[in-house]
Amino acid sequence: MATYLITGASRGLGLTIASILASQPESAVATIFAAARRDNSAQLKELREKHPGRVKFVQLDVSDDKSVEEAARSVEQELNGKGLDVLINNAGVMPWIHGGIEKMDDLNDTFNTNVTGVHRATRHFLPLLRKGQQKKVVNISSSVGSISLASRYQHLSTPSYKITKAALNALTVDYGLTFAKEGFTFIVISPGWLQTDLGGSAADLPVEVGAKEVVRITNEATKDDNGKFFDINVPQWDSKDSRDAGMYRGSILPW
Amino acid sequence: MATYLITGASRGLGLTIASILASQPESAVATIFAAARRDNSAQLKELREKHPGRVKFVQLDVSDDKSVEEAARSVEQELNGKGLDVLINNAGVMPWIHGGIEKMDDLNDTFNTNVTGVHRATRHFLPLLRKGQQKKVVNISSSVGSISLASRYQHLSTPSYKITKAALNALTVDYGLTFAKEGFTFIVISPGWLQTDLGGSAADLPVEVGAKEVVRITNEATKDDNGKFFDINVPQWDSKDSRDAGMYRGSILPW
Ligand SMILES: NC(=O)c1ccc[n+]([C@@H]2O[C@H](COP(=O)([O-])OP(=O)(O)OC[C@H]3O[C@@H](n4cnc5c(N)ncnc54)[C@H](OP(=O)(O)O)[C@@H]3O)[C@@H](O)[C@H]2O)c1
Ligand SMILES: NC(=O)c1ccc[n+]([C@@H]2O[C@H](COP(=O)([O-])OP(=O)(O)OC[C@H]3O[C@@H](n4cnc5c(N)ncnc54)[C@H](OP(=O)(O)O)[C@@H]3O)[C@@H](O)[C@H]2O)c1
Repeated sequence: MATYLITGASRGLGLTIASILASQPESAVATIFAAARRDNSAQLKELREKHPGRVKFVQLDVSDDKSVEEAARSVEQELNGKGLDVLINNAGVMPWIHGGIEKMDDLNDTFNTNVTGVHRATRHFLPLLRKGQQKKVVNISSSVGSISLASRYQHLSTPSYKITKAALNALTVDYGLTFAKEGFTFIVISPGWLQTDLGGSAADLPVEVGAKEVVRITNEATKDDNGKFFDINVPQWDSKDSRDAGMYRGSILPW
Repeated sequence: MATYLITGASRGLGLTIASILASQPESAVATIFAAARRDNSAQLKELREKHPGRVKFVQLDVSDDKSVEEAARSVEQELNGKGLDVLINNAGVMPWIHGGIEKMDDLNDTFNTNVTGVHRATRHFLPLLRKGQQKKVVNISSSVGSISLASRYQHLSTPSYKITKAALNALTVDYGLTFAKEGFTFIVISPGWLQTDLGGSAADLPVEVGAKEVVRITNEATKDDNGKFFDINVPQWDSKDSRDAGMYRGSILPW
């Protein structure tokens, strides 16, 4: 009977996570707050109509403090005294920079969405999470944000994305260390290279594969996993002869 | 006959680095551009008067794009066709947050100084660095920005500092990978816990010890060191019975 809130649920990974959660029995998943900055996503509308009262829309722009505050207030009202169990910070942007890091002109903006946005959502939902049973916060990062793996992604011209996802990892670990004593579990997940608007159609995996793994890792994570950086596990992938052969093995990724 | 530019040279580590460089023979160190956002540092004035024409003041606020652009233009004029050899990105801030990460309200601002500030200086001085002999960029980070070492610094209530220094490490590695082919060396140095306004008087080491190490590591670094995260080496420290006993051994720090 857990309640979830997912940011960036208008499309892509966030929407697919919401949809997978909605397909689980109500004994496991009660309410899914599908938070998005716009109310005109046809796919999210369809999902809400399929699960009336169970998938709830919340207007939430992570780049805007006031919007996040209001979202937290409206969720609090909906929950009517109960807590929020799981927060999945999924909203994010990946701007392409023509000419590489020397031409990067979006660093502050990307940081404001990908890192401060996660901080905003986390701090404003903390009072509700404190009242929740699970006290889980899942931040969707990327292996591209692993500084140790940087050479692997050298030719991906998304410098602000790499830098902000590394910062998101640091934010997550600081939150995890700070709130361990209150029984919280903060984790980061690299959901795989997924076929979404962000990942593009040449990506490794259908979005459903990554979303399923995010839900599995989220549900299986315990307090012992606090502060860890999870990769997804896609067994078929192991056998693929790919330059990314080391990925998708369910291992803990290096910072 | 190398030329150096150091940001944040009004006091603390930056000023001390400038002073150590100025004490070296002119055959090794030609000109030191001591960049600072204000022109009223008595200590920097004294250093300039001690080394007239050799220590040059440059007005540079790393948080302001226009200021950095103008600084690069004025240094270009001073260099009169020659290049800049070494850029030391030292300017930085460490705000204390009462109540820890939950209360953090300075993340965007701290990022703008500690990360985007380094990016601004680097990109605007790149044309001069390309003309230089050494092509070295040294970013002053901190072991506090190592996500792997986060539990060691758990009780230091400077969350935005930790997160932005982790992001600075990622920025440095991206620059290093991008400019290796042009013969550049980008490194990050953790200068030690130093007795400055930022470090406080209870810090482990006099600022001169850290500054000397920064100069040594900078001068000894070769292209093979591109993308590395250096700790300082303080032999006496090894023998101290301290909770930080693993530090100051001259090792490469983990991300
Ligand atoms: N796809 C991949 O290969 C991949 C790989 C690794 C990590 N990830 C991560 O997975 C997450 C989701 O990515 P995706 O592939 O689903 O991307 P996507 O298809 O581009 O969707 C991004 C989602 O984030 C939302 N969003 C962006 N800025 C927002 C803001 N300021 N406030 C609220 N929502 C905002 C978007 O809302 P709008 O519809 O309103 O724009 C959309 O719902 C991101 O954090 C991404 O970094 C993706
Ligand atoms: N001290 C330590 O224990 C320690 C440990 C690890 C790393 N570090 C790093 O070492 C570097 C220097 O630290 P410190 O101990 O010397 O600190 P400090 O004594 O507080 O001096 C900071 C310097 O940065 C300058 N600065 C700040 N914001 C600036 C901006 N927007 N534009 C230009 N300059 C700016 C300051 O200029 P004003 O004088 O105008 O304010 C000052 O010169 C920092 O990057 C710090 O993170 C220090």
